[in-house]
Amino acid sequence: MASLRLYTLDQSGNSYKVRLLAALLGITLELIEVDMANDELHSPEFLAMNPRAQIPVLVVGDKTFTDSAAILVYLAGSYPDVGSTKTPSSFWSNDIAEQAAIVDWLAFATGWIHNGVSGARKVLNFPAKGFSMNDPLGPPTLETATAVGYKSLAMLQTRLCTNEWLALGRPTIADIAVFVYVALAHMGNISLDPYPAVKSWISRFKDLPGFIPMIGIDGPKH
Amino acid sequence: MASLRLYTLDQSGNSYKVRLLAALLGITLELIEVDMANDELHSPEFLAMNPRAQIPVLVVGDKTFTDSAAILVYLAGSYPDVGSTKTPSSFWSNDIAEQAAIVDWLAFATGWIHNGVSGARKVLNFPAKGFSMNDPLGPPTLETATAVGYKSLAMLQTRLCTNEWLALGRPTIADIAVFVYVALAHMGNISLDPYPAVKSWISRFKDLPGFIPMIGIDGPKH
Repeated sequence: MASLRLYTLDQSGNSYKVRLLAALLGITLELIEVDMANDELHSPEFLAMNPRAQIPVLVVGDKTFTDSAAILVYLAGSYPDVGSTKTPSSFWSNDIAEQAAIVDWLAFATGWIHNGVSGARKVLNFPAKGFSMNDPLGPPTLETATAVGYKSLAMLQTRLCTNEWLALGRPTIADIAVFVYVALAHMGNISLDPYPAVKSWISRFKDLPGFIPMIGIDGPKH
Repeated sequence: MASLRLYTLDQSGNSYKVRLLAALLGITLELIEVDMANDELHSPEFLAMNPRAQIPVLVVGDKTFTDSAAILVYLAGSYPDVGSTKTPSSFWSNDIAEQAAIVDWLAFATGWIHNGVSGARKVLNFPAKGFSMNDPLGPPTLETATAVGYKSLAMLQTRLCTNEWLALGRPTIADIAVFVYVALAHMGNISLDPYPAVKSWISRFKDLPGFIPMIGIDGPKH
C-alpha cells in the first residue's frame, strides 16, 4: 500500500484519534508536525491541501483526506485488524445499518463533544490564536462549553449503562471519535466522577491491544 | 422492506435532508410531525427513542437511527436509485475512499454549516426556546454565525469552481447534507451573490429528478 503521511499536532485530540486508530490496527504513519508558530495552517501549500486550514490531514498517494471522521473511516475501512487480512477492520463495517450507527456517533463527536468537553479544554489551555485558527466558531465561553459538556456526558452515561461500546457490540471508530475529548475532559475542569459507566468505558478502551497515550491521557492502569 | 417512520418538523432543514433523499430515491416515508408546542422532544417516549432530544429520527422495524447524517447513510446505502435494483444507491458508495470523501462533507455540514449559515437563520427566524431545545449550543450570536457562514461559503466556492459535486463526480448525500442550509442562507440574511459556483451547484441540485422544495427553498426555475 502507498505510504501514509499524516499532518498532525501533538496537542491535538483530533490528530490523536488518527494516531490511535493506526496504533490499534498496527498501521505505520509518517507524522508531520505542523508549525503553528509560523501559522503553517494558513500557508499557501497547506491551504492547497486543505482549504479549511485544519488538521489532521492524511495524504495517501494522490488522495488527500481531511477531517478526522473521514480519515478514521478511510483507515478503518482500508486496513484489516492486526493478525487478519480481511477488510474492513472491525472498527468499520460493510453492513449499512452498522455504518449508519457509527456515523451517528461520529456526528455526535463533531457536534456535542466538540462544542462541550473539547471546547472547555481549549478555553482553559490554549491561547486564543491557536484555537481560533483551527475552529470555525472561535473560543466558546467556558460556561456554555461546560454546560454542553455535562449534558453530553449524561447522554453517554445513559448509553454506556446498557452498552459496552457506543455504536456496535465491539469497539469501532465511533468509540475513538468520542473517547478522546471525553478522556481529556479533566483539562477543561469537567469531572467524570458522576458518570461511572463512562469511566468504565474509558478503562475498557485503554485496555485495547495497541493503545497509545497522549498528553493528558495516560495508558491503562495495571 | 419494513415501513419507514420519520419524526420530523416542517421548518427543520435536517428533517428536510431526509425527506429530500427519500424523494430522490422514490422512497415512501411515514411522516410524524413532532409537537414542539408541547415540548414533545423532551417527553419520556421521545427521549427513550432519542436521548439527545433532536429530530430527525428514523424508525425502521426494530432499528432506530438518529442524526440526519446517519439516516442519510442508512437510506442511501439500503435503497437503490430509481429504476435500479442495485444497492447502495449512487448517493452512497461501497468504495471506502469514496465513503471517506462523503463523510468528510457530512462532518463539514455538522460543523461549519451548522455553526454558520444555519445558525444565522435560526437566530433571525426561530424563538430561543425552539432553537435551544434542538441545539447543543443554544443560539450563537448573529455576528459569529454570519462570519462562519461567509467563511464556509468561500470554501464551498473554491471547491465548486473545480468540482461539479462536493465529494464525488456525482451527487451524493454529501451534497444533500451541505445543500439544505446553504440554500436557506437567505433566511439568515447571508447572500450567495459573491459565490456564483455555489449558486450554480444549487441550480444543478434542484434539477435532480424527484427534487422537492421546502419552506424557504423553491423548486427549480424553468
